[in-house]
Amino acid sequence: MALKLYTNNMSRGVVVDWLLIELGVECERIEVAYQTEMKSPEYLKINPFGKVPVLVDGDVVVYELDAICAYLADKFAEKSLAPALNDPKRGLYYRWLFFISGPWEAASTNKMLGIDVKAEQKMSVGYGDYEDAYNAFVQGLGEASPYLCGEQFTAADVSVAAMLFWQLKMNEVQSHPAIERYLENISKRPGFQKFAAVFSNV
Amino acid sequence: MALKLYTNNMSRGVVVDWLLIELGVECERIEVAYQTEMKSPEYLKINPFGKVPVLVDGDVVVYELDAICAYLADKFAEKSLAPALNDPKRGLYYRWLFFISGPWEAASTNKMLGIDVKAEQKMSVGYGDYEDAYNAFVQGLGEASPYLCGEQFTAADVSVAAMLFWQLKMNEVQSHPAIERYLENISKRPGFQKFAAVFSNV
Ligand SMILES: N[C@@H](CCC(=O)N[C@@H](CS)C(=O)NCC(=O)O)C(=O)O
Ligand SMILES: N[C@@H](CCC(=O)N[C@@H](CS)C(=O)NCC(=O)O)C(=O)O
Repeated sequence: MALKLYTNNMSRGVVVDWLLIELGVECERIEVAYQTEMKSPEYLKINPFGKVPVLVDGDVVVYELDAICAYLADKFAEKSLAPALNDPKRGLYYRWLFFISGPWEAASTNKMLGIDVKAEQKMSVGYGDYEDAYNAFVQGLGEASPYLCGEQFTAADVSVAAMLFWQLKMNEVQSHPAIERYLENISKRPGFQKFAAVFSNV
Repeated sequence: MALKLYTNNMSRGVVVDWLLIELGVECERIEVAYQTEMKSPEYLKINPFGKVPVLVDGDVVVYELDAICAYLADKFAEKSLAPALNDPKRGLYYRWLFFISGPWEAASTNKMLGIDVKAEQKMSVGYGDYEDAYNAFVQGLGEASPYLCGEQFTAADVSVAAMLFWQLKMNEVQSHPAIERYLENISKRPGFQKFAAVFSNV
């Protein structure tokens, strides 16, 4: 099989596992150890960041979690985990994928690092400040019914919901009725339940 | 016409202008003033960040520059500014779009804010540290021939090249032979020249 996933059970790579369950697709899974294997010269040739996850498809190397999610959803387009190319909802789908990996990731990282954006810096910081990013997040989730793109469950739901479950567990995000309601919709999915049972100790 | 672009001539919104030139597509363009119009209640309803660019397609609102780029490339798929859904190169395409809007944007922002990632923090910072992100960037560009996805020029080239031109101009990135060579390939394109002539004062 051409697809190979370099990952670690204790990493955001598990988000790809969930997506693979939703797609019903199998993929060779190569567990890479932190610090040692991830920083080996051979692995750095695959991903210069020395991080996981990485998806290898023939001679194409895909790193960045959301790139992997978007790619898999398109590769198995018949599974309908992404709106069709000519569906305006595809704009919403991309908005969420780029929101979670761009502003939200950056804002959350800087919160963890203890960095506050000053009022005069907000204009040139892509996420404004943490509060802006949080407000945009919950405002967007308030429109999810039941999923981010409406009736269609997509790879963006996998990425966004996984981030929320993780950050709630780690006390890295404040809960909100819009978050609760959205995760309730997600929790009902058999694909999520299957995933949660396997990775409950992540 | 259904497509509307909320933007400002002195913003990353110009990247969408370049993409529209490459696509040969017209779009209604609404200039939004900084500080005032961008922070008005009506505009915040469209984009809670109060930032540009925003693309509106019917009732779908797309913010995040790279979401807009990916969406337009797909909507006008016949213009071939994105690899086809079943082309493995699409993984590379997404890798670049998510790299530029994720790790690279975050690393550049934190460099501007004067924030260094300590060695022990690198593991949980998505971009590692600035040096890692820079090295991954130039290593990736070293494989561009002539474009990021090979012979096919894509929306990822528009976003990545525009970022590089901008950051070089602002002295926000150190040049490198791989960067020079890549931008030389880009500079030869009529679409870029047309764009550069119009927006030379951005
Ligand atoms: N993550 C956003 C960032 C957008 C952004 O920061 N835009 C700047 C102009 S380049 C802006 O509108 N700043 C005005 C403000 O924050 O008040 C994107 O990629 O589109
Ligand atoms: N931007 C990357 C970040 C990947 C990342 O930071 N992965 C962590 C695990 S969740 C990692 O591999 N850390 C190990 C290290 O940096 O040594 C993505 O979205 O895939």
